[in-house]
Formats: sequence, structure tokens, C-alpha cells
Amino acid sequence: MRPSGRAPDQMRAILIEPGFTRHAEGSVLVSFGDTRVLCTASVETSLPPWLRGKGKGWVTAEYGMLPRATHTRGRREAAGGKQSGRTQEIQRLIGRSLRAIVDLEALGERQITLDCDVIQADGGTRTAAISGAWVALRIAVDKLIAGGQLEADPIRQKVAAVSCGFHGGQAVLDLDYDEDSQAGCDGNFVLTGDGNIVEAQVTAEGECYDEEGLLRLLRLARIGCNQIFAAQDAAVTAAAAAR
Amino acid sequence: MRPSGRAPDQMRAILIEPGFTRHAEGSVLVSFGDTRVLCTASVETSLPPWLRGKGKGWVTAEYGMLPRATHTRGRREAAGGKQSGRTQEIQRLIGRSLRAIVDLEALGERQITLDCDVIQADGGTRTAAISGAWVALRIAVDKLIAGGQLEADPIRQKVAAVSCGFHGGQAVLDLDYDEDSQAGCDGNFVLTGDGNIVEAQVTAEGECYDEEGLLRLLRLARIGCNQIFAAQDAAVTAAAAAR
Amino acid sequence: MRPSGRAPDQMRAILIEPGFTRHAEGSVLVSFGDTRVLCTASVETSLPPWLRGKGKGWVTAEYGMLPRATHTRGRREAAGGKQSGRTQEIQRLIGRSLRAIVDLEALGERQITLDCDVIQADGGTRTAAISGAWVALRIAVDKLIAGGQLEADPIRQKVAAVSCGFHGGQAVLDLDYDEDSQAGCDGNFVLTGDGNIVEAQVTAEGECYDEEGLLRLLRLARIGCNQIFAAQDAAVTAAAAAR
Amino acid sequence: MRPSGRAPDQMRAILIEPGFTRHAEGSVLVSFGDTRVLCTASVETSLPPWLRGKGKGWVTAEYGMLPRATHTRGRREAAGGKQSGRTQEIQRLIGRSLRAIVDLEALGERQITLDCDVIQADGGTRTAAISGAWVALRIAVDKLIAGGQLEADPIRQKVAAVSCGFHGGQAVLDLDYDEDSQAGCDGNFVLTGDGNIVEAQVTAEGECYDEEGLLRLLRLARIGCNQIFAAQDAAVTAAAAAR
Amino acid sequence: MRPSGRAPDQMRAILIEPGFTRHAEGSVLVSFGDTRVLCTASVETSLPPWLRGKGKGWVTAEYGMLPRATHTRGRREAAGGKQSGRTQEIQRLIGRSLRAIVDLEALGERQITLDCDVIQADGGTRTAAISGAWVALRIAVDKLIAGGQLEADPIRQKVAAVSCGFHGGQAVLDLDYDEDSQAGCDGNFVLTGDGNIVEAQVTAEGECYDEEGLLRLLRLARIGCNQIFAAQDAAVTAAAAAR
Amino acid sequence: MRPSGRAPDQMRAILIEPGFTRHAEGSVLVSFGDTRVLCTASVETSLPPWLRGKGKGWVTAEYGMLPRATHTRGRREAAGGKQSGRTQEIQRLIGRSLRAIVDLEALGERQITLDCDVIQADGGTRTAAISGAWVALRIAVDKLIAGGQLEADPIRQKVAAVSCGFHGGQAVLDLDYDEDSQAGCDGNFVLTGDGNIVEAQVTAEGECYDEEGLLRLLRLARIGCNQIFAAQDAAVTAAAAAR
Repeated sequence: MRPSGRAPDQMRAILIEPGFTRHAEGSVLVSFGDTRVLCTASVETSLPPWLRGKGKGWVTAEYGMLPRATHTRGRREAAGGKQSGRTQEIQRLIGRSLRAIVDLEALGERQITLDCDVIQADGGTRTAAISGAWVALRIAVDKLIAGGQLEADPIRQKVAAVSCGFHGGQAVLDLDYDEDSQAGCDGNFVLTGDGNIVEAQVTAEGECYDEEGLLRLLRLARIGCNQIFAAQDAAVTAAAAAR
Repeated sequence: MRPSGRAPDQMRAILIEPGFTRHAEGSVLVSFGDTRVLCTASVETSLPPWLRGKGKGWVTAEYGMLPRATHTRGRREAAGGKQSGRTQEIQRLIGRSLRAIVDLEALGERQITLDCDVIQADGGTRTAAISGAWVALRIAVDKLIAGGQLEADPIRQKVAAVSCGFHGGQAVLDLDYDEDSQAGCDGNFVLTGDGNIVEAQVTAEGECYDEEGLLRLLRLARIGCNQIFAAQDAAVTAAAAAR
Repeated sequence: MRPSGRAPDQMRAILIEPGFTRHAEGSVLVSFGDTRVLCTASVETSLPPWLRGKGKGWVTAEYGMLPRATHTRGRREAAGGKQSGRTQEIQRLIGRSLRAIVDLEALGERQITLDCDVIQADGGTRTAAISGAWVALRIAVDKLIAGGQLEADPIRQKVAAVSCGFHGGQAVLDLDYDEDSQAGCDGNFVLTGDGNIVEAQVTAEGECYDEEGLLRLLRLARIGCNQIFAAQDAAVTAAAAAR
Repeated sequence: MRPSGRAPDQMRAILIEPGFTRHAEGSVLVSFGDTRVLCTASVETSLPPWLRGKGKGWVTAEYGMLPRATHTRGRREAAGGKQSGRTQEIQRLIGRSLRAIVDLEALGERQITLDCDVIQADGGTRTAAISGAWVALRIAVDKLIAGGQLEADPIRQKVAAVSCGFHGGQAVLDLDYDEDSQAGCDGNFVLTGDGNIVEAQVTAEGECYDEEGLLRLLRLARIGCNQIFAAQDAAVTAAAAAR
Repeated sequence: MRPSGRAPDQMRAILIEPGFTRHAEGSVLVSFGDTRVLCTASVETSLPPWLRGKGKGWVTAEYGMLPRATHTRGRREAAGGKQSGRTQEIQRLIGRSLRAIVDLEALGERQITLDCDVIQADGGTRTAAISGAWVALRIAVDKLIAGGQLEADPIRQKVAAVSCGFHGGQAVLDLDYDEDSQAGCDGNFVLTGDGNIVEAQVTAEGECYDEEGLLRLLRLARIGCNQIFAAQDAAVTAAAAAR
Repeated sequence: MRPSGRAPDQMRAILIEPGFTRHAEGSVLVSFGDTRVLCTASVETSLPPWLRGKGKGWVTAEYGMLPRATHTRGRREAAGGKQSGRTQEIQRLIGRSLRAIVDLEALGERQITLDCDVIQADGGTRTAAISGAWVALRIAVDKLIAGGQLEADPIRQKVAAVSCGFHGGQAVLDLDYDEDSQAGCDGNFVLTGDGNIVEAQVTAEGECYDEEGLLRLLRLARIGCNQIFAAQDAAVTAAAAAR
């Protein structure tokens, strides 16, 4: 029995609210249950120096967590003077996952930065961030297309992410904080809308796993991502209607 | 005529939503028009070293702005490795303003940290932060009292803050971003519920001012703070009802 | 009775010695009693990137305190790896105060940096710094004019600053360290030679104040600044004579 | 055809030289072809503060790359003032992989730090580091046992790691730099001596992959790790003989 | 012919003014010609952690240069966030030189920090700093002895320092900035009152030197240090008279 | 009697292995007994900004020590976020020593960086680093000449370095860690192949020295450097043969 009473293959409630803030070219508040992440897409025409004049663009991400997003207050990274290894690992994963489905040549010489800031944390912040960031990116790119700044759509696929792991010996989908802190092993899967894998990371936390375990987690991830894709579609439609 | 069409002594819509996040002992989302700041109060029993064993507590504040809270994306301070002078100046002001109305002996040996994170910026983020932080603090302290952890109420007064300035030669209340960036001079006033002044800061930006100008801004600030005090009362009442 | 025996509206001895060091284009050692600050003005033709090619200049300030300027040794900021929030707040105030009276277009494409380094501290270091920095700036600009590098004088006004506060319930002028550490509230006023206000900051430290209190402090500040203006005039005259 | 002429399931030459340096409790130079990493195990009795007095130990890792380990010189991280995100990600992976096979209670209140410094890089530095660090750890623990400082062996399993990926559409084992920089996707697998998985990470770099692809890479990884386990055994035996 | 017209073995005017600032236990302004360094000695009873409880004390130094001490403005180290290699090298030399003549056991469990801040630079700042720091230390220790806090005098010797070098092929004493920037080689000698050497550093800058050259510089250094010792004596006497 | 049983004027075994790593333009592993330093020379065509367009090149050095090169593990400088004063002092010395014998005009507009990383430390790491770095530089420059990129040889001299000091009252050559930690005074000498001095630094550690002592150390240094020059010749010859 999961602490939350969910079935093993049951996601938490997914909610993706477009337009949560108004300055960014794309903005959503994504919730996976009590995990809530604000994702904004900022379009800029200046590129990092190593990319200038190559006829292509760049997609990157930054991740942060408000100090009291968590059960007990964490240190503010800006006050500490550096981003933790965990923060850097997550923001590298978010950026890589989105670049995997973007045609950087078609994007042209512009950079889109996805800022993913965790307002409230209850497990799965990185997967919620990737899933929400895709919608923010989609909305920003749709504005560029609508404004005549882009001819072809540089986004080749949807992308979504979800965590899975073994909890009490059972493979379960979309771990919340209680499960995550007791999981024997846990993983994150980033999948595309056409069923392929962008990234799979499964880490033993106390108990190792075998090939069969890896596959069971992957299959749960497919179930979860399909629900996320539907929520993404709904959010993109709502954003288009609001324009 | 103000860019927003407001009368010179007209505040933007004030909204203080308690319980915006669930882990913090006190949490509100405060809006002054399009400026929105998440304020959380975290109660901890560990004190900074220089205060330990003195039979009194501490109230402090940290301030941050999400990179895309603003019209154009700003640099993430955690990535840059330090907090700007502006950030430090603001968080020092917030902490000082709240300590001015708290009896630190009555608080006992605990520290309350107010985290004020700007979700969306449209001028006046520091004054919204002070006004919201007071409510978060009030809610946290009410929980300590309700839980029997505090006997006497350490909060002596309400405190609220608002900006005023000269725009187009006219004294106006609660400047938004458009006004702020063109103001001849602008100031921030932190006032208590019984009408006294905690802090007054008025800075010439291009045109100096005289004693009469200073007094006109102070009188506008009184009008604004009275409305904020009412919104604070409503939020505290709502939070109590929700408990 | 003030600890120093001074009357409530009595300044400490003001001394502004021009030419204290010889490399800077302008240099003074300013003393408000035992508070001594070395102020130098450095003229450079390189501008910060965001100002280049706009046909105007910039005036900025940096502030520091020698580790043993104070009663007990403080940490050297360079060794600690960052400037404190207090340091940044002060240097921002100094820069803002001087820019308020300089015509940046008339200054042309050059930057003048005012370095204000506290040799000995006894309260009021930031107000001594502003008052001395104005003289260093004046001397440096006079050299530019004398050398034919400037046609019109970009300095529109004198500017001086002084602290005031309530000590033992009494409004007093120019607080020294003993008074400052016990003051109920204290403020800094930056005034121009023609009687206007550049910046007013009054902060409650333990006891709040009212409108009447604010005005009494402002009136004391006028008395103090008039004496500082006279000392500035004498220093500028002496510097001109020495040229 | 692989650039190196190797068969798809062919590892580079594996060499693990124990005793490469003499101060560390365990020390090896591990080579996967031209990739060479110095791994040292340092045993210390001081623990990080959050682990003290809990009757258990800790295993952690740090990773570095000499500036000219690579084809072109990279920036020295110590000079730049921080470790890159990549460095932090790798050292977190190494530490996690070794902790997965160590009984921290059986280790007692001591910390073992694995320093993995890349002397020469040609792809696969993190997998060589994990594989070599295990041997350094094994040697250090054997010394503790031989010296009577440990009663039970806290190491439960061997652990080794290898990279695999798709290069030119073909699944290949142990990518060198040439292959790595052109790979469509690449992954790192950390496996235990009894055939289980500690960590699997597979990342699309330009082309996504499917479930079948994931399994093919895992099977290659098993082939590689079995060879590494044999090299580890030989190194441990040689180290014991030299004692 | 030296640019300054001095004879090869002629020092600049040496002036050591005790009591330049009043908070420090020892304070002097030392001038070697236009080079002026403020040296303060701060006595503290807290020791660095690694020295506590060992029945002995510590003497250390910090060095800084005001940004406009030099011909053109340098970057403020506190603003840049770190001390340069040059600064660290100099402050290590100053601390080492003073520890060489102090009996740390006799000093007891206290730390004396010598802060050497360059007010104006014209070559030889490190040698002026060592020479002045000794006087500040002497004054501070005399106060401890006079106050009954020390029984035996922990200072075993006088110490002074001077630079020498080859300029235009000629060995010259006490290089000023003009000479220093054109010197073929330059060195710093730290000598004790009884004629021994604490530190000798001679560096080729463009032309190497031989044993005879080294000895000629050392002999010049003796001439210079003897004059500095006399100036130190005068300053210590003046400080004692003023007490 | 020296702890190692060596005669006072006896060097440890010197070994300079060229080609220890393969990416760098020049690379050696230098051993002075158990002290082993990897020195690489990297040739780059980009120059530091202040040297561009002046028709000359630059030679610089960076120094590091692996955390467990020493008897007990030291902190990794990259993790601590800065290089220690000792590290900076050493790398400045290495760079200065090599520039002293290079004709920077003849080098042309290129920069050569010598990275000296201590693999194992047993005293004398900086002198081994200088001696090895010269060989790495020589090999890199020979490649430039062989490749037709340089017409004239910019290296004017050999350079080598060795430490000497007083141990137990006796002047000894090439101190190892045991001697170094008990030495009364110790020094480093950098000499050229034609017998001149590039740098002499002799520091009292507990006991001061006199002119005669300085000369005895210098004479020992000559003995040591002559042996190092022979080892350098052998290494350069071996590197040429291997090309």
C-alpha cells in the first residue's frame, strides 16, 4: 500500500496552468500533486559567445527551489554564493531534455531559457519541471510563429518526464516525498510523444535492481507520460484560446 | 494623468492570500496590482551564534526575485554567485522593519525567517514584501500561541509599507514600474498600525525635493498604509478561519 | 546631556584637508571629530559597457573600512571574499548622492570614481564620506576645466550629508559612535547647497517616530550641512591656492 | 566500423596498477586505453557533522581533471573558483555508486574519500574512475582489516562501470573520445559483481532510443564489466602480494 | 644617475609617526619617501582553532592597498571578491618576518594581527610595511607589559626591511616606483637588529645576477636597515613619551 | 646525520620522464626522490588581452597538488573555491623563472602555459616543478621549431631549481619533507645553465642566518642544479629520439 493510498501505476493529479505570470514569452505553473513548479520561457536574441554566427540557436534551463518550498527551510543558494551539485545536475538534465526535441537550426539565432522554480516541493520536482518547461517553450515558440518571427516549427516532439521507483518492493509511479525518501531505488524517465526515450536514469538507493526491474519502471513511466502529454495538450490549447 | 489612470492617492488593488504554500508556518501571496510576492515565515529553534543563550529571539528576512519576474530576464543570483547590493539593501530593510515591532525577548529563543520571493514585478516589490511578510509572521506567531509554545504575543504592532514619489511633478501613491522608471524622486515609507514611522527613505532621481514635498509623500503613505492594514486584517482573519 | 558634552545642535569639529594623497585627481582627508575618511576622485576615460557611446559620463563610488578603523578589529572584506550588505548600501548611497548634482552629459564620456576609505571610525562615516567625496570631485573637475578638458562645469550644486537621531529622547545632530549605538532612531540627510533634499533616510532603532520627529531631524540636518558647506568651500579654496 | 578498429563489444585495454602513489591508504592508476585516472582512498576518523555519533561511516568521492588531460587545455577549476556542473555530477555518481555496495554501519565511524583525478582523458573518465575507485577502496579496507581496525568486511560487492552508446547506428561498448563526440546516444552503467544494476543513465545526444536499444546497451555493459571485474581481482591480488 | 637624484646607497626620507589612529593597540604611519603605509597592531584573545590550548600565541599580517594609492586606479580587492596572488604573497612575508623575532610561547594565548594598508604607493610598500609593522607590534606589546598582561618581553629583536636592485647596471638602495619598474633585478631583504637575515628574496627581472651581485645588494640592505632601525627607535621612544 | 642518510650535498635521485601524457605539446613526469610532479606545456595562440597585438608572447604557469599527494589528505582547492596563498606564490615563481630565460619577442604571439601538478609530495615540489617545466617547455618549443612555426629559438638558457636549508645546524641540499618540517631555515634557488641566478629566496624558520650561511646554501644549490641540468639534457635527448 502506498502512503498516499494511490495504486502503483497511479499518477498524482496533474495540473498545468498557462499564463501564471505575464512578462515571460511562455509561463506555466505545473503541479504534480503538491509539487508545484513555475516554468517560464524567455526568448532572447543574444546567444552565448561560442554559438554566435553559426546560424543556429540554443535552449537552456535554470532550476531553483525557494528556501521554504520544502518541509524544513533550506539555505538560499544566492546567499550561499553557489548552486549545489544537485541544482546543477537538474538544470543540466532539463536543458538536455528539451534540446533533444528542438531543431536548433530551425530556431534561428536566438536563445530560449527555461527557468524552473519550485514553489512547493513534494517529490518529483525535476520531472514536473521538464514537463512544464515543455509547455512554456511550446507557448513561447507559438508566439514567435504567430508573430512571423519563425517560419518552420523548431519543436519536433512533445517531451515529458516522470519518476518511478521501488517502494516496499513494489514498482510505483510518480513518487511523492514520503515514498522518495524511503525508496529502494528510484529513477527518472524522459520520454517523447512518439514513445522514444530521451533520458533514463535509475539509481539504487539501498537496493540494487535487475534488468526486469528496469523494464517495469520504464513501462510505468510510459503510463505516466501519456497522462502528462494529455495535460500538456490541454494547457497549450488553453493558452492558444487565451491569446 | 498617471499612466495607469489611477488618481494620485489611489493604491493598486491589494490582495493578500494566506496559505499559498503549505510547508511554511506562515505563508501568503501578496499582490499590489501586478506585483506579486510570495512571503513565508519559517520558525526555527536554532539561533545565529551571537544570539545564543541570551534569552531572546531573532527575526530576519531574505529577498529574491525570480529571473523572469521582470519585463526582461535578469540574471539568477544563485548562478552569478552573489546577491546584488540592491537585494541586500532590500532584505536588510525588511528584517529591520519587522524587528521594529517585535518584542524579541517575548519571542523566546527562536528565529523566524521571512523569505520574500518576487514572482512577478511591477514596481513596489519591497513594500509589498514588508506588508506581506508581516501577515506571514502574524500567522506563524498565532500558530505558536495556539500550540502553547508562546505565552505572550511578541508582536506589538502591525506594520505596512508603501512607495510614493513625484511623477510628472505630482505626488503619487504606490508607483508601478512605468511610474517608477520615470519618477523625479521616489520613496518608501514603513508605518505602524498606530500611525508612527518605522522607516522613511526618499531619494531624488533627477530632481531634488523640499520639506513640503517630503510631507506630502508621507501623507500619501498614510492613506496607502491604512488600506494595507485592512487587507492584512482580512488575511489574518481568513487564515484563522482556515485553521 | 550628550556623552560628548556637545549641545544638541552642535556638530563635531569638521576638517577637510585637500591633497592628502598625490596620485588621485582629487583627494581629501575629511574628519568629523574622530571619524576620518580618505576620499579620492579618479578620472578615467573608460566607461562601463552599458554607457559607452551615449555621449555622457558616470559618477560612482566605492566604500571601505580599514579592519582596525573600529574599536575592535573587523574582518577585512577582501579576505572574506565579498563586500557586506552594509558596505554596498553605503557605496550606493554615496554614488547616488553625487550623481544627483552632476550633469552627466556635461561631464562627457568619462567616469569619475570616488573611493571613500575609512581610516578611523567614530560614527557618521557615510555622511563624512559624502561630504568629503564632493570636495574630491570638485577638485578633480576643476583640474579638468583648468586643463581645457571640460568646457562647462558639470557640477550643479554642492552636496553635503549629516546624521541626526534621537538619543535619550532628544533630537541631536551628528551622532558619534557612543550616541549611535544607543540611539532610539537615527537618520541620514543629504542636502544641496540651495537647501533641497537629495536623500532622507530615517530608521527606527527601538523606538518609532512621528512626523514632528522627522521634521526636527531635518531641521538639525540643515544646521549641520551649512557648516559642512563652509568647510567644503574652504577646502576647495585651499586646493585652488595650492595648484 | 569503429574509429579504433575495435569490435562493437570490445573493451579497450584495461590496466589497474595498485600502489601508484604511496601516502594514500589505497591508490591505483586505472587505464581504459588512453584514459588514465589516479584513484586514491583516504581513511579519516573525522566525519561530516551530520553523521557524527550515529555509529556509522561515510564514503564520498571527489573528481578532478588536470587542465591538460584533454586534447586542448581546459580551465583549472581551482583557478576559476568553482567546480563545474559536470564535475559535481560525476563526483556525486562515483560516491553514490560506492556507497551502494558498502555497509556503512560495518565501516564504523570513519570516512573514506575517493579522489579520482584524470591524468589523461580519452572518453569514459567517469566509468574508469568508478572502476578504479573500487580497487582503491578495497585496498584501504583490507589494510584496516589487516590492522585489526575493522572486524567485519563492510564491502558487500564488487562494483564496476562502463560506458556504451550508439555510434553510427551501432551499439558499441566503452566509447573513446572520438566515438563519444559523435555518438547518437550514450550511457553509463554501474553494475555489481553479482550482476545487478546500481545505476543506469542513458542520454540521447541527437537521436532518441527505444526499449530495445536500452537493453542492447545494458547487455554490452555486462560484457565490459565482467572484464573489469577480472582486472580488479588481479589488482587486489597484486596489492595483497606487495604488502 | 638615479631618477630621483639619490646616491646609490641613499635611502628615501624615512618617517614613522606613532599614534596615527587611536583604536588599535599599536598604530603607525610609515613613510619611505612618497610610499605611505598605515600599520596597526590588534591584540585579540581568540586564537585560530589549530592553536588553541597550546600555551602559545600567534602573530599574523594582512596587507591591502587603497584603490587609488597608485598612479592609476586599481581594482578594489573586496569588490573583486578575492585577494590577488601578490597581496597574499606580501602578507605572508610580513607575518613570517615578524614571527621570526617573536617568542610565541612568551606571547601567551593571544593573537596579534598587523594590518598594513597602503595609503600611497611609490615602490617598496612591502618593506615599509614590515618596518612599520614592527613598531606597531612593539607599541602594542609595550602596552601589554605596562598593563601587567605580559611578564616577559616576547620580542627578541628588531626587524626591518628594505628593497635593493640593479638599475641601469648599478646596485641601488630603496627603489622607488620609477626605478622598480625599470630594474633589471630587484630584491627584498628582511634583517634583524643584530645583523642577521630573516629573509632574502632577489628576483631577476630581465637580467640574471651572480653571487657578487647578491652580496652587493645585501650590503646595501644593511646600510638601509640601520637607518630604519634608528627611525624605529625614535618612533618607539615618541610613543612611550606620549603614553 | 640527515634522516635519509644522504650526505649534506647529495641530491635525491632525479628522474625526468618525457612523454608521460600525450595530448600536451610538452609533457614530463619529474621525480626528486618521492616528490613527483607532472609538468605539461600547452601552446595556445590566444594571448591575454593586455598582450595582444604587441608582437610578443607570454609564458605562464599554474600549480596544483592532488588532495592526497601529501601524508594526510588536504582540501581540494577547486572544491574550496580558491587557490591558497601558497599555491599562488608558487605558480608566480614558476612563471617568473621561465620567463627569465625566454625571449618573448622571439616566441611570437602565442602563450605557453606550464601546468605543474603534484602527484606525490615529499618536499621540494616547487623546485621539481620549475626543473620539469623547463623540459616540458623545451620539448614544446622544439616541436614548434620542427614544425616550422618558429624560426629562432626563444629559449636562451636552461633553468633549474633546488631547495637548500639548515637542518640540525648543517647546510644540506634538496630537503625532503622530514627535513623541511624541521629546518631552521630553508631556501629555494633558481639558477641558469651558465651559472647565473634567476631567483634566490631564503627564509628563516626559527633561526636567522648570516651572509656566510646564505653563500653556503648558494654553493650547495650550484651542485644540485648541475645534476638537474644533466637530467634535463637526458630527457630532452630522449624526447627528440622518440619523435
